[in-house]
Amino acid sequence: MKMWLMGALALAGWMTAGMADAQEPTVEKKVFELASFTTQSGRALKNVRVGWESYGTLNADKSNAVLICHFFSGNSHAAGKYDASDAAPGYWDAIIGPGKAIDTNKYFVLSSDTLVNLNTGDPKTTTTGPASTNPDTGKPYGLDFPVVTVRDFVEVQKALVESLGIRKLALVAGPSMGSLQTFEWAASHPEMVAKAMPVIGAGEADAMLIAWLDVWAAPILVDPNWNNGDYYGKTPPLAGLAKALTAVTLQANHQDWANATFGRRPAKEGEEPGKALANRFQVQSVLDNAGMARAKVSDANHFLYLVKANQLFAAGGTSLADGMAKIKAPMLLITQPKDLVFTPDMVATTVKAAKEAGRDITHATIDGSRGHLDGVISMKQAEGAIRAFLEK
Amino acid sequence: MKMWLMGALALAGWMTAGMADAQEPTVEKKVFELASFTTQSGRALKNVRVGWESYGTLNADKSNAVLICHFFSGNSHAAGKYDASDAAPGYWDAIIGPGKAIDTNKYFVLSSDTLVNLNTGDPKTTTTGPASTNPDTGKPYGLDFPVVTVRDFVEVQKALVESLGIRKLALVAGPSMGSLQTFEWAASHPEMVAKAMPVIGAGEADAMLIAWLDVWAAPILVDPNWNNGDYYGKTPPLAGLAKALTAVTLQANHQDWANATFGRRPAKEGEEPGKALANRFQVQSVLDNAGMARAKVSDANHFLYLVKANQLFAAGGTSLADGMAKIKAPMLLITQPKDLVFTPDMVATTVKAAKEAGRDITHATIDGSRGHLDGVISMKQAEGAIRAFLEK
Repeated sequence: MKMWLMGALALAGWMTAGMADAQEPTVEKKVFELASFTTQSGRALKNVRVGWESYGTLNADKSNAVLICHFFSGNSHAAGKYDASDAAPGYWDAIIGPGKAIDTNKYFVLSSDTLVNLNTGDPKTTTTGPASTNPDTGKPYGLDFPVVTVRDFVEVQKALVESLGIRKLALVAGPSMGSLQTFEWAASHPEMVAKAMPVIGAGEADAMLIAWLDVWAAPILVDPNWNNGDYYGKTPPLAGLAKALTAVTLQANHQDWANATFGRRPAKEGEEPGKALANRFQVQSVLDNAGMARAKVSDANHFLYLVKANQLFAAGGTSLADGMAKIKAPMLLITQPKDLVFTPDMVATTVKAAKEAGRDITHATIDGSRGHLDGVISMKQAEGAIRAFLEK
Repeated sequence: MKMWLMGALALAGWMTAGMADAQEPTVEKKVFELASFTTQSGRALKNVRVGWESYGTLNADKSNAVLICHFFSGNSHAAGKYDASDAAPGYWDAIIGPGKAIDTNKYFVLSSDTLVNLNTGDPKTTTTGPASTNPDTGKPYGLDFPVVTVRDFVEVQKALVESLGIRKLALVAGPSMGSLQTFEWAASHPEMVAKAMPVIGAGEADAMLIAWLDVWAAPILVDPNWNNGDYYGKTPPLAGLAKALTAVTLQANHQDWANATFGRRPAKEGEEPGKALANRFQVQSVLDNAGMARAKVSDANHFLYLVKANQLFAAGGTSLADGMAKIKAPMLLITQPKDLVFTPDMVATTVKAAKEAGRDITHATIDGSRGHLDGVISMKQAEGAIRAFLEK
């Protein structure tokens, strides 16, 4: 099992989640390629490649497709296992599979890696971003890669979906940054989205989230190895990226978890934090170790481009009100009231805008001690709400 | 007016606060020196110096003294002006002064700079910390300075108070890190504290706060100019310190303020954030500029030592329950329910522990759009509660 996945899983508590049914078919990672893709910012990119996977079978009239969009640090592994011996299945396996809330006996579920996906060191992730080789120069793009937006992520997914002959998606869904893609799909291509299920997210990045994303990115910008994005073939900014990932992990969690799990225990017995500047509490070392494990298979420029894409996000490209006005699909919004990233205030603003625009929106909540992360790991709670939404 | 103060005030909204009464006497900054001070960690420091100031007059039996303890990035300038032309008075001037809630016609109010105070570049701040010259070597301590705790801050204050012949304080009070010192005073020297008024704080740093403090510190540790604390006489880690101060400023505020003040406006008209990686939103540039202005008169090692002192904090030195058991003083705890640093959950834990220990605790709240910072800038709201507490 890959190190970063181990780190993520240990923190996410997935080790305690049920194992996938041994009878389920294994999942295959595929690659979708676009010879040319023009970004919202107007740059034409050649040979854009993204990984994708699917569960279930596309029906004859291609009307049963569900698209799952991944979170900031995730990839397209939403459900199932690549191999029966995998320690854990994809992140939303609790709600995607045969007989589950998003029933793969009924739906053809697919998911793709976004552009500028973080996990460049993971062989199961394929993406195009600053770390990719620019076919025109034979060298990595670095900061010459254009700014990309959540709309760009959606347009690549649209090309993939259309390449399969799918004209309309029965459902678009995803947690966190996946919810942003969900809102974007519903606002930008309303005729292609029958239903939308954004989870732990909102219809627009507000000033506070924009500023928090800068706090996440800060250690990368200060790391001398970042070198203004020019570090390929040299020493990468591992220390800065690790600290950035630590910040993400913390804000994606909640004090209920931190306090119950770590309390004020020292990292090492006999090394009291008060005795030396270098002595630490357990919560510090666990978060830092998890950040470093992830950093080793991630790319710092991709992190910064993801931050930028999230900061730029407003559903439909202009404003929350505009985005909501464009949406046609009924929405099931699922959030966690303890979420420190997409806070209850932010969620309320989105719900209000959706209602003011006359949208059909149902708001369900889940609970737990993990805050934001419960939208990834505790989705079993929303099973009933999801079934009801899909059946209505 | 000093640059960092300008930055802090602009962000704090103090520019709109009332000017101090021109009739009030001006404040004088003094320096208290201890020939020797032994830290809780057992190190003897020579020539420990801290700045202090006072308002009002100490009465004949020295029974009217009030001690105000400052916040993380603050200093002892709690009230009044150094000069009638100062743009703004000390941070709690709304509640300290002639006829105000903490009435200087009645009380002798004093405040001192803590050890490892952040504002080493401010001529009105005097402190002892890593940036100070070690009398034994003639060179700055750097990371050879011992770990110091909130208890150490209190012990230096105690020496100052005793040097004035004061045996008991009518009140100890302070916001944020000042509340930690207040709890510490009440737990460590219960016989010396008649009343305690901790504001926007809690009786212990929990795992979540410990981890957030690491997020604040991260950019300093990654900055190559930090050089493991050895940068005196060289280029200081300004970039890292600026980013650290930006994180503090953000978390000390609230989305109500960020969203209402900045929205999604670009930093510069015509430079749309989506057009280039370097184009920013206004909220990003304002926070970064404020962080950089503060960094220029602050010290990065002092920042790290303050982080450590806050992480180590448990009132009375061991645990919340223990600390509360030691306290004798009636307490008025004033908090802001939108506080993102000392969250309502954390505050509730402290109130519960105080009640379980049989303490006389009154919990009042203030509101506003600034979250944590309202405990510094919006204290006028608590005037009635403070008067009632002091009179009871």
